[in-house]
Amino acid sequence: MSRVSGRARGDWRLCVLTDSRHARGRSHIEIAMAAVRGGATVVQLRMKDEPAREAVAAARAIAALCRAAGVAFLVNDRVDVALAAGADGAHVGQDDLPAADARALLGPDRLLGVSAATEDEARAAWRDGADYLGVGAVYGTSTKADAGPPVGLDRIRAICRAVPVPVVGIGGITAENAAEVIRAGAAGVAVVTAVTLAEDMVEATRRLREQVDAALGR
Amino acid sequence: MSRVSGRARGDWRLCVLTDSRHARGRSHIEIAMAAVRGGATVVQLRMKDEPAREAVAAARAIAALCRAAGVAFLVNDRVDVALAAGADGAHVGQDDLPAADARALLGPDRLLGVSAATEDEARAAWRDGADYLGVGAVYGTSTKADAGPPVGLDRIRAICRAVPVPVVGIGGITAENAAEVIRAGAAGVAVVTAVTLAEDMVEATRRLREQVDAALGR
Repeated sequence: MSRVSGRARGDWRLCVLTDSRHARGRSHIEIAMAAVRGGATVVQLRMKDEPAREAVAAARAIAALCRAAGVAFLVNDRVDVALAAGADGAHVGQDDLPAADARALLGPDRLLGVSAATEDEARAAWRDGADYLGVGAVYGTSTKADAGPPVGLDRIRAICRAVPVPVVGIGGITAENAAEVIRAGAAGVAVVTAVTLAEDMVEATRRLREQVDAALGR
Repeated sequence: MSRVSGRARGDWRLCVLTDSRHARGRSHIEIAMAAVRGGATVVQLRMKDEPAREAVAAARAIAALCRAAGVAFLVNDRVDVALAAGADGAHVGQDDLPAADARALLGPDRLLGVSAATEDEARAAWRDGADYLGVGAVYGTSTKADAGPPVGLDRIRAICRAVPVPVVGIGGITAENAAEVIRAGAAGVAVVTAVTLAEDMVEATRRLREQVDAALGR
């Protein structure tokens, strides 16, 4: 592994996940466009039921729009789709491709995010090559059946102490509670419905970004 | 593309697909072991609902047993799982990762199978780097909801004429009708339930292999 230990790459302040199952009929591309316009620093394509051919087509389009805007673009779970579409990287959960395998397939230069709910999972993910950790569900969430019980802010603090890799809080995060997640030590927050179900997705993204930036003192 | 046009690689006589949804409770590994013992020349892991982490674990075990037996091992749809597990290649359908993308990710040396139901799909798959084509459903099938109506033996003949790549018939094939698929021009047959639902999976594989070999004049 050629990574420099402790070296943080990427801007993890606000990640918007496109999940069209919880999006008032909006498409992945519509969500990604609004996220980019509103100031997301990362867009993550989360397709669960769609065939891979459709995922590659959507990922190619989103990769192009993110590249033009200087926003990082990751694909959830499917490392092959990420590579085929020219994404910046992939994000894997604990039931997805093992992090070490994902890192080997992505190579040292692409970004790898890994979901971790405990300090042990966080240490393993860091060791296996994660560039950042998605930690949650911080609060309750309706979009992920296998998310487990909320882990709360204390877990964010504990994982931030346990590993040197940036932590992104996920699960039930809104513009109202984003700042406290950052104050607990997170480098950023990741959201689904706070954007995808919003009346105005661009404005919702902008408000989240403002809350995160203010809490980070930027 | 560094492939030699028209050069056939691999022994496609009998492919057994492990599909645990239609397997009397048998696991992917149990099916693969029986297939190898009975004389399958290819084993293909077909996991549709299981998480990728489980697929990689099963694929690693099956890759090891196939390697020891000199049997080719392919993973259906998930090229990342195929690569992570060290499989010999992957098989993609028309809704999966596009064949050209699968070929790019697999590199020139790994095997790529592509499903094709028409002569146009067959020509495109060959052009995009397929080593063999899965053509079907030859007869009716119960294991694949999106298989479309049976294409019959005439389609096997037409596709064998249209492209120089080996054709493997799939869909409703049994020891009773395997020989006529070979006589129509196929290099082999692929089966699911003819093996996975059989009382004795090893014996069922052996009978299929005998029928194919006899029809090929071996």
